Amino acid sequence: MKILIENMAQSARSAVQTLSLATAAQKSAALHAAANAMRDAENTIQMANQRDMAAAQEKNLTAALLDRLELNPKRITAMANGVAMVADLPDPVGQVIDAWTRPNGLNIARVRVPLGVIGVIYESRPNVTADAGALTLKAGNAVILRGGSESVHSTKAIHACLMAGLRSAGLPETAIQLMSTQDRAAVGAMLTATGLIDVIVPRGGKSLVALVQAEARVPVFAHLDGICHTYVDKDADLAMARSIVLNAKMRRTGVCGATETLLIDSAVCDTFAMPLFDDLLAAGCEVRACADLVSLDKRLHRATDADWDTEYLDSIIAVKRVDGVDGAIAHINAHSSHHTDAIITDNTTTAERFLREVDSAIVLHNASTQFADGGEFGFGAEIGISTGRMHARGPVGVEQLTTFKYVLRGTGQVRPG
Amino acid sequence: MKILIENMAQSARSAVQTLSLATAAQKSAALHAAANAMRDAENTIQMANQRDMAAAQEKNLTAALLDRLELNPKRITAMANGVAMVADLPDPVGQVIDAWTRPNGLNIARVRVPLGVIGVIYESRPNVTADAGALTLKAGNAVILRGGSESVHSTKAIHACLMAGLRSAGLPETAIQLMSTQDRAAVGAMLTATGLIDVIVPRGGKSLVALVQAEARVPVFAHLDGICHTYVDKDADLAMARSIVLNAKMRRTGVCGATETLLIDSAVCDTFAMPLFDDLLAAGCEVRACADLVSLDKRLHRATDADWDTEYLDSIIAVKRVDGVDGAIAHINAHSSHHTDAIITDNTTTAERFLREVDSAIVLHNASTQFADGGEFGFGAEIGISTGRMHARGPVGVEQLTTFKYVLRGTGQVRPG
Repeated sequence: MKILIENMAQSARSAVQTLSLATAAQKSAALHAAANAMRDAENTIQMANQRDMAAAQEKNLTAALLDRLELNPKRITAMANGVAMVADLPDPVGQVIDAWTRPNGLNIARVRVPLGVIGVIYESRPNVTADAGALTLKAGNAVILRGGSESVHSTKAIHACLMAGLRSAGLPETAIQLMSTQDRAAVGAMLTATGLIDVIVPRGGKSLVALVQAEARVPVFAHLDGICHTYVDKDADLAMARSIVLNAKMRRTGVCGATETLLIDSAVCDTFAMPLFDDLLAAGCEVRACADLVSLDKRLHRATDADWDTEYLDSIIAVKRVDGVDGAIAHINAHSSHHTDAIITDNTTTAERFLREVDSAIVLHNASTQFADGGEFGFGAEIGISTGRMHARGPVGVEQLTTFKYVLRGTGQVRPG
Repeated sequence: MKILIENMAQSARSAVQTLSLATAAQKSAALHAAANAMRDAENTIQMANQRDMAAAQEKNLTAALLDRLELNPKRITAMANGVAMVADLPDPVGQVIDAWTRPNGLNIARVRVPLGVIGVIYESRPNVTADAGALTLKAGNAVILRGGSESVHSTKAIHACLMAGLRSAGLPETAIQLMSTQDRAAVGAMLTATGLIDVIVPRGGKSLVALVQAEARVPVFAHLDGICHTYVDKDADLAMARSIVLNAKMRRTGVCGATETLLIDSAVCDTFAMPLFDDLLAAGCEVRACADLVSLDKRLHRATDADWDTEYLDSIIAVKRVDGVDGAIAHINAHSSHHTDAIITDNTTTAERFLREVDSAIVLHNASTQFADGGEFGFGAEIGISTGRMHARGPVGVEQLTTFKYVLRGTGQVRPG
């Protein structure tokens, strides 16, 4: 297994060298061709997906997993459009991030370059194949994809379209390699391939994340839980708070940016809590409230300590009364997963304190936590959301898949001393 | 040992929270006070250093190590000035790296924030205490310092000055902690303190780097070898080439930016090689040349294959004849440690190809590789040079010791769909 990874990584490394010299137009053409190939192959992809779906149904996999696995014409179109959108993004490679001239006349520029060989380990969603392939190629990287066993046929069909795109643009097929074996040992071999793979992006559930945390020696863009908070301050506009809280929790409960805990300023609990609960309960959300709040309404459940640290990904919300923005910040910094947290208030000073003092990848003022998404940021697509602090934080788009080098231009300068 | 690190890291984490709210003026005042404390404590620091020097001499440590260990009044002044220079750098925390507004009116800003808890593991140079303490504090981080056993008294004396600076500015002393034990197990415990220490910066020789590579589970700003190249192209100005090559190799041979391999374009070997060799040999440099060149001059030694992959850090240079810029790029990408590589040419097209295609942290045109230094980049100071690709690449200054968060300001936006 180690030799397989070594061989794939070496092919990938030489593809990076070719890609780093490819023009922006070439990479863009490859991705547009891949998107068109996906549109043309809609039937083939769907048939492959039906094989995966049938096998998954036989194994009695959950409805949630079947939903993640399913590709219908609408989803295939969306996937192809996503690849085309990445194709049209500005090319990050060669961008000058910063430039300055030293007193000795040396000109220093910090220039974006590809990150190298990226490993992406994912589970049932076959469309990650397209997103990851497109984003890594756009940034001039080579990628080694390791999809889940449930989606093996769908993934292969999508990968074939990416290959067609690479070929049509004269780029090496080894730029986007799909691991052929379903052996679990391959994941372990990827995670320990230091020097061969530059960074691993894991996309999956808690068990994959735990495995990666335990075994990875290669740097990882980790995605831990998304325990996101919305804090409703005493100076909030109630109508805005109602609309944001309902959206933040209930728009889609299964996304990592969904609010899991609602914090309400004690100064306005009497007036704000009931309308917020009414909306949530009416939308079918279970409300688990702290001791102070649970007495207000017998429809509420009593929250336990564990609730403050739970990512439900479901129609459940924990609610706590806190003493103003200080109480909110203290609770969030103690319980948040440093993913996404929001404040609703009309008081700019209070908002700025929250935005500054809450140590999360994404902090919002008067907006829904469900905006935690690379597409919503204008990144075209994302390969995941990093809750780590190194290199990438928040949505991982094309730019986060690059690194930089320093380019110094002189006229014969030597260093004195 | 694990508990010691846990305690230190927890104190450090709470210091980060305080520091993230400290004003730029407070951090700057702490560092100016620390610099003044160093100037005032010149005698104390020197006496402490003399204890270390005496112990080192008893142990028959090498002259190179004694030199790295020694602190004289001039070096103490330079160290204090370095801390004061960092104090005067612009505060990176809160800087808006980028900002844009989405079609829905959401304003997104990418804002610099502290990286967190930094671990610095170093060896005999006691002044790393001052540099690391100053840079990490400036960026709003807390640091855990693990100095070498040879420099224990010097390090403590310098650390006391940093403490005095923190106290005088009302900042927590736990912002800059010095590990009190010399037990080697402490290094292992730091390297595996995932979740407690955010990044480790190793500063030392090959054995420390190897230990870190083997054991680190915490992210590392690795510094591998500095196998730096200078390529003299056929279109080079010979006088400039002579001056740069001599400086790149001989200004200081022990620094990581020193050129270790000279590549000469085969088109100009006949005219360029001898003058370049004359300068190097006259300066006391041993020249190890490839088969093509060694016949030119009996003062030359024959290079072996190992020479192309050796960081001498000494008055030795490997020289190879290559076929133009293509040959140079191929040799460098095969043998360089991706640290620093230079081209000397008057042909801009050739230079731009080299700058683009050589995959190193620092690439130079018509300048000495000895400029590979944070101070020379205008960073005020550096905590090391990263040969890794993640987060920091090249000189690690204040900015590389930060991360960022996304701050979204809205007016009630909810996400559709």
